[in-house]
Amino acid sequence: MANLLPDERLRSQFLFILEVEALKQVLRRTPLLDGSRRENDAEHSWQLALMAMVLAEHADEAVDLPRVLKMLLIHDIVEIDAGDTFIYDAAALTDQEAREKIAADRIFGLLPADQAEELRALWDEFEARETAEARFARAIDRLQPLLHNFFTGGGTWHTPGVTSVDVTARKSPIGASSASLWEAAQAIIAEGVARGYLKPGE
Amino acid sequence: MANLLPDERLRSQFLFILEVEALKQVLRRTPLLDGSRRENDAEHSWQLALMAMVLAEHADEAVDLPRVLKMLLIHDIVEIDAGDTFIYDAAALTDQEAREKIAADRIFGLLPADQAEELRALWDEFEARETAEARFARAIDRLQPLLHNFFTGGGTWHTPGVTSVDVTARKSPIGASSASLWEAAQAIIAEGVARGYLKPGE
Ligand SMILES: [Ca+2]
Repeated sequence: MANLLPDERLRSQFLFILEVEALKQVLRRTPLLDGSRRENDAEHSWQLALMAMVLAEHADEAVDLPRVLKMLLIHDIVEIDAGDTFIYDAAALTDQEAREKIAADRIFGLLPADQAEELRALWDEFEARETAEARFARAIDRLQPLLHNFFTGGGTWHTPGVTSVDVTARKSPIGASSASLWEAAQAIIAEGVARGYLKPGE
Repeated sequence: MANLLPDERLRSQFLFILEVEALKQVLRRTPLLDGSRRENDAEHSWQLALMAMVLAEHADEAVDLPRVLKMLLIHDIVEIDAGDTFIYDAAALTDQEAREKIAADRIFGLLPADQAEELRALWDEFEARETAEARFARAIDRLQPLLHNFFTGGGTWHTPGVTSVDVTARKSPIGASSASLWEAAQAIIAEGVARGYLKPGE
């Protein structure tokens, strides 16, 4: 590619873009709303960014929306190497962090150094959940599969052993960012139990 | 849904989010880079937003990146109703504008009025190509399939009758925003002809 694109900076940027395109191939457990197939990480990331645009006013602390959008656009890129870790799979969750850090080093490292640093900092911020932006981004990331599970009659809620107590615990990051979205999420979980989509917890 | 989500504003926002999820089902002509299937509009929109983040420095006029990102996230939403219009299909292109305006009225109209207006204005801005942000967003929208066609050995360049002259004309919006990206695009088109991926024009 050096002959075709003699400028090294632009070439690094193109290589990164071509590499992360593989996010379209990383399947998640969440079904599309019509139930026809599982969604992939690329279209999931688009949907979260759009949701953040529309729902930003519900964050309890004012958020810098552009930073939320950037975070959501890159938050799952590490899964190209590390795979999607199913939220109700405790064993896979144990080494998830280590696998994802190695992936972040490799993938963001394809970019020119200044951009590698910028995107890596955004990803670290998302993972740390210490800023209002990271907490809101995480809340949206938890809200989206909740909607998909509910509107497809349960989706991954039907995983053996999963109850409304597990779901409520997994979804609590929504409450850490937005009282109004958390109220809506809890109403949806309760209605899921009422409709038999989800087993009640003890 | 009124019982489940008593707040009318939040309910409208959720209805919009659930409706536009269908963008994951709108297929484009462009192949994924591994050639395994055609891409859909949702994952395409994610990729364009990410490309804009990484390539913004190449815009000849400084752009407000957040506005570019928002534009790219919503630019194809009208295709849920209007479908993807193939860029080398002259007949379908003739009524494309009218079909897309009707779709924009319906889909953005699901949102609360202030947000419907904001997103519609972004879409109108993208379509009009009069601002630096709209021109850059359009340039990225033209650059992405060029990369995919080239790196899959031709892709839609193999459409009967299409030559490098057609491709260069269709890709000229890249040059209207960025001299460096246009230089790269022209080098890729020339190399596509040299490799036999694309017929030379007269
Ligand atoms: Ca995610």
